[in-house]
Amino acid sequence: MSAPLTGEQQPFPDWMQSVQTRIEAALARLLPPAEAIPALLHQAMRYASLGGGKRVRPLLAFAAGELSGAAPQNLEIVSCAVELIHAYSLVHDDLPCMDDDVLRRGRPTCHVEYDEPTALLVGDSLQSLAFELLAREDLGGAAVNAERQLAMVRLLAVASGSRGMAGGQAIDLAAVGESINLPELELMHALKTGALIRAAVMLGALCGDALSTEQDAALDRFAKRAGLLFQVVDDILDCTASTATLGKTAGKDAAAEKPTYVSLVGLERAREFAAELRSQALESLVIFGERGRRLIELTDFITRRKF
Amino acid sequence: MSAPLTGEQQPFPDWMQSVQTRIEAALARLLPPAEAIPALLHQAMRYASLGGGKRVRPLLAFAAGELSGAAPQNLEIVSCAVELIHAYSLVHDDLPCMDDDVLRRGRPTCHVEYDEPTALLVGDSLQSLAFELLAREDLGGAAVNAERQLAMVRLLAVASGSRGMAGGQAIDLAAVGESINLPELELMHALKTGALIRAAVMLGALCGDALSTEQDAALDRFAKRAGLLFQVVDDILDCTASTATLGKTAGKDAAAEKPTYVSLVGLERAREFAAELRSQALESLVIFGERGRRLIELTDFITRRKF
Repeated sequence: MSAPLTGEQQPFPDWMQSVQTRIEAALARLLPPAEAIPALLHQAMRYASLGGGKRVRPLLAFAAGELSGAAPQNLEIVSCAVELIHAYSLVHDDLPCMDDDVLRRGRPTCHVEYDEPTALLVGDSLQSLAFELLAREDLGGAAVNAERQLAMVRLLAVASGSRGMAGGQAIDLAAVGESINLPELELMHALKTGALIRAAVMLGALCGDALSTEQDAALDRFAKRAGLLFQVVDDILDCTASTATLGKTAGKDAAAEKPTYVSLVGLERAREFAAELRSQALESLVIFGERGRRLIELTDFITRRKF
Repeated sequence: MSAPLTGEQQPFPDWMQSVQTRIEAALARLLPPAEAIPALLHQAMRYASLGGGKRVRPLLAFAAGELSGAAPQNLEIVSCAVELIHAYSLVHDDLPCMDDDVLRRGRPTCHVEYDEPTALLVGDSLQSLAFELLAREDLGGAAVNAERQLAMVRLLAVASGSRGMAGGQAIDLAAVGESINLPELELMHALKTGALIRAAVMLGALCGDALSTEQDAALDRFAKRAGLLFQVVDDILDCTASTATLGKTAGKDAAAEKPTYVSLVGLERAREFAAELRSQALESLVIFGERGRRLIELTDFITRRKF
């Protein structure tokens, strides 16, 4: 717990901007060069990963890293690993056989800009690269040994796979046009978006000194509430914001007869639920005192975001 | 180098059968149970991975493990990791946007038996699981420490991703209907099938005591020659064997105007090339003496296989 709190004086918007800039540069460096063979695949991987996105997961990792005094170099690498998994999931979700979407981050989706087979391979390759990053030899320093890195690989693999994000997608597919109840919707989201958000938080903390068992449990509680909060706000935005603001197709959940918090409990109750989740998330952070400040600010950002 | 040579007296067909049986059981144990939520996805993952296949990559890993006195428990785990990557690649390759194939291992392909979105998620989830396996805490023992496991993760990630198997697929896609030359075809195959076959061999050896630099280089040479040999024989079988014998659609490369060794140099020259590759592969094994026996037998099996 000896590392200084970085950016202690930096206002939140500046801190957010600096992490986003750092992640963009790190991804550009860690992705294979656009001219490396096979060039088209590498260009498409870069297209799908660079130049956009709120970088919510990297922001969560960096904010959680403040709790354990994590080195920024380590946070960069694990943030990129999580972001590559996120980027791969978007590319595959947008495919014609899934959501069949043409717009993402204000640009044509990967299979529209390139083609379907390339987009399939882009997603597959981004996933491999994510695990390659977590196993890098330059991820380390005093706080992070090889055992810790293996724990990171396991954590990201479980969060991404059939008992995490991909499993949530499968439940989502099965739910289209079906009537599901609130606990079922919560399970779906806990896997589909929650698992990777939780992984981002836990991986960020794992980049520094070990937390106590009590702190670890509190952070896990925070991560689960924050993940669900993110999704409830997403559902609210899907039915209240415009396509231009979102940079992706608005209203598509309703159009696809997908169950959402808004469709299940209505807009007003969904907003109340978001407020409850925010409170619960913030309560979990009390144990960390001033070190939890970035996570508190980020929780408020996630609650109030407009896109 | 102290572990006994397992199965020293066992005839090759019995050894092969015993490894195949062991891998089937290990995969059945390491895959999520069919009834675990989401059940349909887990059933489909098991459908795509169990009950078939020659298990060439696990056989190579087990045979290479004899060079370093590797523990069978470690070989089981790394073999399953490689086999899951292989299984995921088949599921994605068979999708309508790729090869659009309906038959695999004598059964309907995954997207035919289930549906396209499920098959997409099956491939994605099998890949995550492969990396989870390599990071398991029960992979270890005296010879394999955490640093070694991280090297395994890196090796499999590079072999699977855009500079390995997926990259080879991308070159394959770009080559359809194009005229490419022999070096280009060799690069494509070195990535598309060669990278994962090399990974199987190297991972098997990494499950035991460290090899000398000279041995490591010799094994790498062997693995590259064996990988190419496997592909040349595959091309020959694609144009000479029947669909019933192969358990997958025969003649589909020619139908899809895909360049193969047979289309480029003719059947006779392709057979000569296979014989050359076999000789080169076997020469690389001389340094290992009697410990290389299983790899020698396996090379002959790969050369002479009829399916």
